[in-house]
Formats: sequence, structure tokens, C-alpha cells
Amino acid sequence: MPALDESAGPVLDLLLETPLVRDKAGASLQRQLHQRIRGAILDGRLPSGCRLPGSRTLATALGVSRNSVTAVFELLGAEGYIALSRQGTRVSTLTQSASRAHDGAASRRAAAPAIAERAVRVRESTPGAGQDLPFRPGVPALARFPLSAWKNCLDRAVRRTGTAGLWYGDPQGEPALRTAIMRHLAVARGVRCAPEHIVITEGAQEALSLCVRLVTNPGDKAWIEEPGYRGARTAMLCGDLDIIPMRVDDNGLRIPEQAWATHTPRLIYTSPSHQYPTGAVLTAARRLDLIGNAQRYGAWIIEDDYDSEYRHSGELVGAMQGLVPNAQVLYVGTFSKTLFPSLRLGFLVLPEILAPQAAPLLKEALRGGHRYEQLALAEFIESGQFSRHLGRMRRLYKRRQDALRAALTQYLDVPHVVAGGDSGMHLTIRLPADCVDVRIAEAARAFDMAPMPLSRFASCPLPEDNGLVLGYGNTSESSFVPLIRRLAMLIRADRGAVKR
Amino acid sequence: MPALDESAGPVLDLLLETPLVRDKAGASLQRQLHQRIRGAILDGRLPSGCRLPGSRTLATALGVSRNSVTAVFELLGAEGYIALSRQGTRVSTLTQSASRAHDGAASRRAAAPAIAERAVRVRESTPGAGQDLPFRPGVPALARFPLSAWKNCLDRAVRRTGTAGLWYGDPQGEPALRTAIMRHLAVARGVRCAPEHIVITEGAQEALSLCVRLVTNPGDKAWIEEPGYRGARTAMLCGDLDIIPMRVDDNGLRIPEQAWATHTPRLIYTSPSHQYPTGAVLTAARRLDLIGNAQRYGAWIIEDDYDSEYRHSGELVGAMQGLVPNAQVLYVGTFSKTLFPSLRLGFLVLPEILAPQAAPLLKEALRGGHRYEQLALAEFIESGQFSRHLGRMRRLYKRRQDALRAALTQYLDVPHVVAGGDSGMHLTIRLPADCVDVRIAEAARAFDMAPMPLSRFASCPLPEDNGLVLGYGNTSESSFVPLIRRLAMLIRADRGAVKR
Repeated sequence: MPALDESAGPVLDLLLETPLVRDKAGASLQRQLHQRIRGAILDGRLPSGCRLPGSRTLATALGVSRNSVTAVFELLGAEGYIALSRQGTRVSTLTQSASRAHDGAASRRAAAPAIAERAVRVRESTPGAGQDLPFRPGVPALARFPLSAWKNCLDRAVRRTGTAGLWYGDPQGEPALRTAIMRHLAVARGVRCAPEHIVITEGAQEALSLCVRLVTNPGDKAWIEEPGYRGARTAMLCGDLDIIPMRVDDNGLRIPEQAWATHTPRLIYTSPSHQYPTGAVLTAARRLDLIGNAQRYGAWIIEDDYDSEYRHSGELVGAMQGLVPNAQVLYVGTFSKTLFPSLRLGFLVLPEILAPQAAPLLKEALRGGHRYEQLALAEFIESGQFSRHLGRMRRLYKRRQDALRAALTQYLDVPHVVAGGDSGMHLTIRLPADCVDVRIAEAARAFDMAPMPLSRFASCPLPEDNGLVLGYGNTSESSFVPLIRRLAMLIRADRGAVKR
Repeated sequence: MPALDESAGPVLDLLLETPLVRDKAGASLQRQLHQRIRGAILDGRLPSGCRLPGSRTLATALGVSRNSVTAVFELLGAEGYIALSRQGTRVSTLTQSASRAHDGAASRRAAAPAIAERAVRVRESTPGAGQDLPFRPGVPALARFPLSAWKNCLDRAVRRTGTAGLWYGDPQGEPALRTAIMRHLAVARGVRCAPEHIVITEGAQEALSLCVRLVTNPGDKAWIEEPGYRGARTAMLCGDLDIIPMRVDDNGLRIPEQAWATHTPRLIYTSPSHQYPTGAVLTAARRLDLIGNAQRYGAWIIEDDYDSEYRHSGELVGAMQGLVPNAQVLYVGTFSKTLFPSLRLGFLVLPEILAPQAAPLLKEALRGGHRYEQLALAEFIESGQFSRHLGRMRRLYKRRQDALRAALTQYLDVPHVVAGGDSGMHLTIRLPADCVDVRIAEAARAFDMAPMPLSRFASCPLPEDNGLVLGYGNTSESSFVPLIRRLAMLIRADRGAVKR
């Protein structure tokens, strides 16, 4: 340990009396430090006016980052326990209220973390960026979007509706749009529902949050796919659920038989038609098993059908929702992939049995809105423009996927397995253990590519989760050869780096 | 008790062994009944093939509504425990999994309610409707909205941005809009912030939900205003908080001094500039006290500044947010009142100390979007059109309020007190105890008026919460005389009804 500021000695001794407990989440160290300093101030061991050691000194002594110490100081400053100035950090003169706070319940509260536990836990993950870069998964071919046709629908909706479209509207969304979605889903996905079971949401993410709010209580067990969609994990984290990752294999979500009894879930998240990100299709036997067991054990299933409109091979896989009458399936869809992300229109199809029970919460918590956009979308669907756009995009994505596969075969001269691609806009490649996907993805960003490391979709990545998720929706066919040659070079370089 | 179906006897005896526990929320009776029947099926007391009594018979015997029994039957049917047919309801043959479910943790889970506790609790409230009717609170003068000017901004945003506006965009919202909001708030409301502290939200409701998610854990104590905004209560209910209503008097939210120690809150909701719905303005002394105590006790304050842009009298009341540097205030605003509700654009200003801690959750949970609308709004503000629109609306609402006050003075010949009106678009009248606001509001709906009963804003209404909240934003001045004459008639009729 390096030499410490002499004068800080006694204060440091006090704060170092017992070591900080280290767990996975680094932020809990901050909480402990905050609690410890505040406790010492409140019980008078650190008297008013006492100078605290500098953040650098304290960080070194405690073995935490300087940022952590600074954050704790800022929090204590905001709470009025310490005063930060250029002359250093000193304990404030506590007011009567603050001293009183030390007695009873208030001191326990004062020691609690300043932000929600879930906000601390979400820190562990690092979201990707670079929406407009090649390979970024989940981005459709935006340059090919018929913006002027869409704009015409929007203009007509404004003209036809006038100022009547300025109201909040129906909390579940425009009835015309719900009817259009119902018709489309029945034909395209075999989903059975009535317009009153549909809730228009702020993209799929709000639909997932709504599922969590409607059918779970804090602490309930929720099964998610591993590796799986990060947004689902976030929605469940925000609902304070006990998240249990379940491995995915080539046949989709694999549930160990005993898990139903030992880790009985309240909610199960799955993307059965094209598992995100592995691309596996959940087999019929597993679908039936999942539905049957969910009914027996009182669990609800979220079926996220995010990209199945773009089926590229094999027979059409219908939605789980329509497989069995009255299945406890909450069906989630989005127009982010079929139209464009910034539209923020998604939807949730409630099971018939849940719809009446959900109605009061929906009425109180939702506000409707975006009526011109919703009416424009209803027209876009009913006029057939939506289906034609889907057809064009399906053919485009098929060509792009073929071009990507050809480039991978020819130029990725590292052992790898290509997974997925039966539908959607991405392929997943699994890489050998002697390269590190996170590092490769980072290196790729320097060359303006945004593949996502496969391991980042898993809570506890296994060796098979080492790979890259390659979105091809927004990249022109001719770009794949130079892009994959560069990517192959980066992968080779990374393997070399490990061996050295 | 009427005569029961003879054959149902033994089954009824079994189900009636112990009485159902009755509490406020009717839905819990359903849960108990569900639990009881399922338990009897699982432990074999109701064997496979056994016929259950009809829903009418069971409802009468248990003293619950037939709807409750039907709902329980539907749930048990969906779960596979019973089979409903025209020949009657019978216990199903349970599969191996379902029988196994009876052992261990699974049976406890199976007995849990099918939907979230919060969804059951929200049932107690009955939301209003009739958005386009006179007196409906919270609706601006939509016929006066400059729709074509707004449409021009939107068209320019689409033209200027092109397909680049189709991406998700920044999770916190368009930087240009956040800058425009920051500038406007600094001048109009004395709010101190930087664009990076602003989060654009799906109206104020998402901003409130976000506050709850960012700074509270389930079970934390939250103080709300009583009577107060129902949307705040819903947001806190959805966050599973321990909601503590605090009374409001003529000086706004009144906190009993000892409450800080005995019921230390994590979160406090207030609408200090024009309390909703009483219209009280929180005094400066109380504001400082609230901020000071919140800092000492580690609580966060939500300041909902929903309608203070329309100040009608007295000096301008600045926001609490700017009153004290680094106050633990989360400032919430909305364009639903200043522009139009279906725009669904609101915002949250994070305290500087919270912003970096909140960033990871915001990045993971929010998706940006609505970019053309946000860019259009940025232009609408920066070009001065927003301020001019506010000025026009402020003058209009002042005239409308004056007309409403005059009509009340002249035609409401029942003792009453008019409260609020320093800003915004509603007045609140308190009525004598010998009439019932809920009944009057219901009667008014038959005459196409939508005042809200004041008591519906309180969890435990006191006699002083008997009254009507009268929105005047969307009603022309000339309408108030006939409307108030009719309303006065309905109030007199209701008083008469009580006396008879």
C-alpha cells in the first residue's frame, strides 16, 4: 500500500476498522462506504468540522476506485452530511432534524442506498451503440423504407381527424389499429384474438414491462432465455423479479423437467419463432410442453414474436399463442423491425382470460395518444401497403443473408458455426475459445462495424456463447465481402493476441 | 338462504367449511375461492370427474357475486383443473405434472393469484371518461390548437431529417429538444439543469413511473398528496410502494413534523405550484422545509409542475427545483396541457447527483423514438411559436375562468367554496355534506358534462373532500351560464334526495 496522507490517519483507521464486503456488483461497495461514513458522522465519531481524507487517499486505502469515493462524497454532500470545498471535505454541522434522524427508523432509512437497487444492478451490463453501423442487430433497411407513402398516410390521418385527434384517446390504443392488427395477425401468424385483447404499446419494451406489471409480484421467479434478449431481462429487473436464466439449445428454450417443481416460475419469456440471438426455432413438442406445464403450474408465457414476419426458409412457424385454445400466452409484437424503430409502436395481445382482469390497471396506467400515427398505421395495414412492404423487405433480407453467408464461407478463415437465419435480420456465428468476442466487437467498432458479442446476451456465458451477432438488415449486399474480410482479420488478430 | 341444488350439497359443505375472509378489495374473495377449490382438487377431496355446483348456486351459498364465481371457474378451467361444458363443470383428470405440482413449492405457487397484486388493488378506483365533455379536468382548448402550424414543423422535421429520423435515437430523447426545454424552463420556471439531466418521456405518466423505478425499492414508503393526482398513486402502486396519503390544506401539502421520523419516506409526490386538484400553492416555508427534511432523511421529491405555465394571478411562483442548489427534486413536466394530450411528450429533470447513477437504467430501459415529433417540438419552442401559443392560451383560460367564476357566483345557489385558480385550467368547488359529489358527477354525465368528484382524488375522503373539480380549459365562455344552471339544479336535486 502506498504512503497515505499523514493527517488522514485516524479517520482512515475508523473507516477501515472492518473490511468492505465485496460482491459482484461493484456499486454495493459504494453503498457500504456511504453507510459507514454516514454512520460515523451520525454517532459523532466523525465530529462536525472534521476533515475527511481526499478521495484519492481513501480510494487507495480501501482498494476501491476513486470514482466510487467521489460518488459517495457527492451523495453525502447532497444529503448535507459533508461540505465539499476547494479547501477539502469537512463534516457539516448537523441540524436538529438530522441529529434526531439518528434515532429510530430514520437512521435505518438514512443508511439505505440513495437509488433503487434495480438501478444499481442494471449497471453490470453495458449496452451497445452505433445504431447506423453495419452488423448492428435489430435495425431494418431504413433507407428502403417508403417514407413518402408513410407520410401520405400520416397527412391523411391528420386531415381526416382534425383536432379530434389531439385527445388522449383510448388507453389501449386506436380501435381501428387494433382491428387492423388482429386481421393481420390472424392471417400472418395464426394468432387468435379480438381487438379488445390488444393493447398498443410504446414498442415491444413497454409491452414487456406491462406483462411484468400485470402478472407478477416482486420476488416472483421469472425464466428468461440464456443467451437471450437483454430488453426482457431489463423489464424483469425493473419488476424486481427473481430472474432465472434457462439455457437455449438448437431446439430453442430447454427446460429441465424438474425445474417446474424446484423453481416454479410465475413468468416465462421466450422468442420461439426465431430465438434472439441464437436463431433457434422452438420445436412443436417443446411448445406444447411449455404451454401445458405453464397451465399446470400457474405460470404465464411471454411470446416475443419480434421478427417472424421475415421467414426465409422452411415452413411457416405459427405463433404459440394460437397453438392451443386459451393458452396462458401474452403475445408481444413490434413495428420496429417491420416499419421503423422511432415509430415506437408495438403491441401486446392479452390472453382472453386475463383481459378483463387487466382492464382496470390498463385504464389507470395508460394514456393512449399518438393517434395520428396509429390511424396512419391502420390505413397502411388495411390498404395492403404493409403487406407489400413486408414482401419487398423479406426478399431484400433473404438476398442480404445469402450475401453474408457467402462472404462468411469464403472469407472467415477461422473455425466457426453459423446459427439462425430461418427468419429475421441477423445471423449468429460461434467462435473458438481462443478469441474473445467482447474484444473483437470492440476492435470492430474502431472500423465502424457494430456486431454484438454473443456472450453479452448471457448472464453466465458458457464457452459456446463466444461469438458475434451479425445484423444484416441495414447493410447492402455488396458491402459484406470487404466487411467480413476486415472482421476475419480482427478475429485472427485477437486469436494471435491470446496465443502470445 | 334460498334452497340449494340438492346434488351440490357435499361439495358445498366442503367449500363452506370455513368462511371466506372479507376485506375491502372484492377481488380477494375470488382469490380465496380459487385457492380453496384448487386445494380440494389437488389433495383429492374433489376427485377427478366430480361435478361442481353451478355458479349461481355457489355464488348464493358463499354470498359472493356470480361474476366472481364465473371468473374463478374460468381461471381453474384455463389452468386445467376443471373442464367447463354445457353438461356442467367437472374436475379434470390431472396429469402427472399437475399432481406432482402439489408437492413442495409448486403448490404454494399454484395457490397464488393469477394476476399481480397491484392489478387487483387498482380495481378499487373507477377512472373517469368523457374527454371531450365540458368540465372534464385536464383537457386544454384543443379547438384553438394551431394544428397547421404544428403540422408545418412536423413536415419540416421529416424533410430535414429524412430516413435518418427512423432510427431509435437517443434513449433520453433528441438533444435539440432537451436543449430547447432547458432554455424554456430556465426562463419560465427558474429550473436549473443541463440537457443531459433531461429525459424525454411518454407524457408525465412515464416520467412518474421512471422516478419510482429509479429511486425506490418495493415496500418503500411514498407520501402522496391527499386529495391528489390519481396518476401519481397509480405509478406508486405499480412500483409496489407503501403509499401514505398526506393531507393538503390551503397552503398545500402539510407534513406533520413527527411523520419524518415515524413514517420516513423514500419518495414524496407533490404538485406545489397549483396542487391537483385543490389548487393550493405550497408556501415558501413549507417548500424549504420539505427540501431540507428530504435531504436529511434521504428522501426524493417529485415536483409535478403540470399546469404552472398558465399563471393567472399573483406573482410567478418558481419551481421548487431551482429554489435550493442540489435539491433532491425530480422535476416532472408535460406538453399535454400546453400543446395537446395525444402528443404524449413529457419530461423528467433529474437532480444532478442522480443523473450519472440513473444513466445505465435509462440506457437499458428506454428506446428513444418519436424523433420527428421531438424535432418538430424543438423547432416549435426555439422559433418562439410555443411562447406565443402559451400567451394566447393563458389569456383565453383567464377569460374562461372569469366566466366560470361569474356563473358560479350568480347561479350556484348552494353554499360552496371555490378553491384554486391561481393557474391552470380548473377550479375546485367544495360542497356541503348533504349532497354527494360522486352521485352529482354521475347525474351530470347524463347531461353531457364531466366534472370529477373531488372525493375520488382521496383514498380516505374527509367531509371537506366533498365537491367537484371543474375543468374550464376546453369550454367556451358563453357555455358556462347554462352549464352551471344545470349543474346547480342537479346539486339541489341531490340535496333534496338526501333529505327525503
